[in-house]
Amino acid sequence: MNIKRVSKVDVPEDDVTRKIRNLNAKSPEGSAARRIQFARTGGYDVLHTVHRMPEVAESLARAIQGRRALVVTTPTVGRNVTRPLVAECAARLNRRIPTMVLPCSEEQKTQESVNAICTAVLEAGLDREAVLIVVGGGVCLDLATMAAVAIRRGLAQIRVPTTLVGQVDAGIGVKGSLNFRGLKSYLGCYLPPELVLVNQGFLAGLPARHFRAGLAEIVKMAIVADDILFSLLEREPLFTPEHFASNGGNSRTIVWRSIASLLDELERNLFEDQAHERLADFGHTFSPIIESASGFEVVHGEAVAIDIALSTELATCVGILPGDARDRILALLRRLSLPTFSPVLTLEQSLRAMNAARDHRRGLMNLILPCAIGRGFCVAESSAIPPTALRTALERLPRDIVVP
Amino acid sequence: MNIKRVSKVDVPEDDVTRKIRNLNAKSPEGSAARRIQFARTGGYDVLHTVHRMPEVAESLARAIQGRRALVVTTPTVGRNVTRPLVAECAARLNRRIPTMVLPCSEEQKTQESVNAICTAVLEAGLDREAVLIVVGGGVCLDLATMAAVAIRRGLAQIRVPTTLVGQVDAGIGVKGSLNFRGLKSYLGCYLPPELVLVNQGFLAGLPARHFRAGLAEIVKMAIVADDILFSLLEREPLFTPEHFASNGGNSRTIVWRSIASLLDELERNLFEDQAHERLADFGHTFSPIIESASGFEVVHGEAVAIDIALSTELATCVGILPGDARDRILALLRRLSLPTFSPVLTLEQSLRAMNAARDHRRGLMNLILPCAIGRGFCVAESSAIPPTALRTALERLPRDIVVP
Repeated sequence: MNIKRVSKVDVPEDDVTRKIRNLNAKSPEGSAARRIQFARTGGYDVLHTVHRMPEVAESLARAIQGRRALVVTTPTVGRNVTRPLVAECAARLNRRIPTMVLPCSEEQKTQESVNAICTAVLEAGLDREAVLIVVGGGVCLDLATMAAVAIRRGLAQIRVPTTLVGQVDAGIGVKGSLNFRGLKSYLGCYLPPELVLVNQGFLAGLPARHFRAGLAEIVKMAIVADDILFSLLEREPLFTPEHFASNGGNSRTIVWRSIASLLDELERNLFEDQAHERLADFGHTFSPIIESASGFEVVHGEAVAIDIALSTELATCVGILPGDARDRILALLRRLSLPTFSPVLTLEQSLRAMNAARDHRRGLMNLILPCAIGRGFCVAESSAIPPTALRTALERLPRDIVVP
Repeated sequence: MNIKRVSKVDVPEDDVTRKIRNLNAKSPEGSAARRIQFARTGGYDVLHTVHRMPEVAESLARAIQGRRALVVTTPTVGRNVTRPLVAECAARLNRRIPTMVLPCSEEQKTQESVNAICTAVLEAGLDREAVLIVVGGGVCLDLATMAAVAIRRGLAQIRVPTTLVGQVDAGIGVKGSLNFRGLKSYLGCYLPPELVLVNQGFLAGLPARHFRAGLAEIVKMAIVADDILFSLLEREPLFTPEHFASNGGNSRTIVWRSIASLLDELERNLFEDQAHERLADFGHTFSPIIESASGFEVVHGEAVAIDIALSTELATCVGILPGDARDRILALLRRLSLPTFSPVLTLEQSLRAMNAARDHRRGLMNLILPCAIGRGFCVAESSAIPPTALRTALERLPRDIVVP
């Protein structure tokens, strides 16, 4: 018999009465308290490859060997990426890997979609050792993460982001979310994945507008954290999904440096409980209000680009960013055909956005402004930004590139 | 201006080209990898008081001072406990504290109930600093924990368990759960609360059967972890909600020692990712099948008592528990009017339960058996239990006390 643990030593019976008397004497007021302490540790790997389907299939096969698995994907990604990937992986393992195809628009970021995934997991007979593999963009990753975190209090998850924003931003962290009663991402979770597989080759065929939106997140990290990345972006001759998917120019280095910069940032504060001064929040103070005020006509990355432009002008207005650095940033946004202006971003909306950021970041606005290429500053208090500076910055925004 | 962080040093422009060449040279195969590491630390207080409503109200008021709050409770608890508690707390803070009353039967442990709590939180205007206060039994705590963990990725929660099983077991840990498609607690979460307030006075008026069911969890901890607690139970003259609510006999020490023993156990493995040999699993290997096979006619604590009786007989059959210790355990269960037999617990069902435990505990059965009063052993492999021993143990179970 395998005997594992002995809990307490025996106490002679005659000692009991005395001990009870002592115990009661210790707390005459009749109240007691105890503090529970915990430290939860873990980690996960992010693997970056360029057009190497066999390598991705091999990594995936190795990760799920001997374990049940279910793949969740979206219809388009399912046809272009998931079917060949799963087929190659299944051939290596010599078994079938069930796949669930789920439409994943922003409107479908609901509890019903999460329930559909939970039902599929149940029907696929996934046990506690099993793994949920998500192949898709942001919404698909959000939904599958919400399902995985809840199923038996945490099912292992492997993330395979297929959009550019997924590969350099939303897909490599630990968050999932749901819309609730019209509120974007009101419900959410943290679930460290087991593995993230980023394969640049999967970018082939991505719609140009969504590819560009992903570039905005790369520009964001370049401006606040990596001047080399910024220079690479300035020099890259072509920004198309096909160029990136085929490892053209320095696209591989661009994607990986962007990932590495964000992971450096995320690692310091993975569960967002350590600080509210987050460099990766650059471009994310004015953008939510641009998205919502435009009725989501402006997509997330475009709103981030407009926010970057405004934050850059603002940094120059308050005197922390030299004019030539501002010019380089605005020129890069133009090179990437990213918008720098939206008519919905009025002075009133900008002030409202700063207040919303304060509510969102527990009392401090924590606006990130660039102060050089590759450096970000955190402006904690909204009172540090004079409304006149904000008005001037808005007026100066280049208006030649607006959202298509 | 409050400048918080500088990210990277500037690199002279002429260095860039050389650096890029070096970077590309480092990874000729075109793949890269990075491991993210994290350590998440925290803690929470468990406060135990005896019939001291003012003390509980004071602790609660102190905890929520200056923060928005919503109370979630059940209809019966709402009338008996929550209304006076919240009134006293509100008087101290000189403000209104909104309360949501939610029916919380096992059938209502659904996503719809969680959504109702999320909607109430939204309508009460709770922000990120706010706190959700749960006053009730196991199901209410489960539902409110599921809501709190998801709302904005984690709303602070204060737990005020009002049933005995809540106070000594389900209410003092970090778990929440939901039933899904007929599967009990298929979905769940971990959310360390901010504070747990256990007030024994709230036990007054509890139905006798559910009070007794809570005693089974105390007996569980006494047998595997605390022989003093066991002796106290043997000597206590009265086991009624009123006796415990009015701090009769050694009831306070009984409740606190039971809490302290469980917290010792929980603290080692709060998120159940450290080990699958858990002393607190004693009484929880055969009980799930007793509950389900009886169509939940046998309530949880009663099923735990029957499991304790079977595990005890089994421990004697396999030779690790002396006969006199077994007699003391069975005599205690009888004293507490806890059942020791159920006709649904056949040999087949018992074997099935051991297999289910193995699936549940990642490949190992990890059956906890007592080997003395206050000591538990972990039997890892089901092959260590001969079916003949299991049959004999089942035959020997005292049949004079069955479920009402």
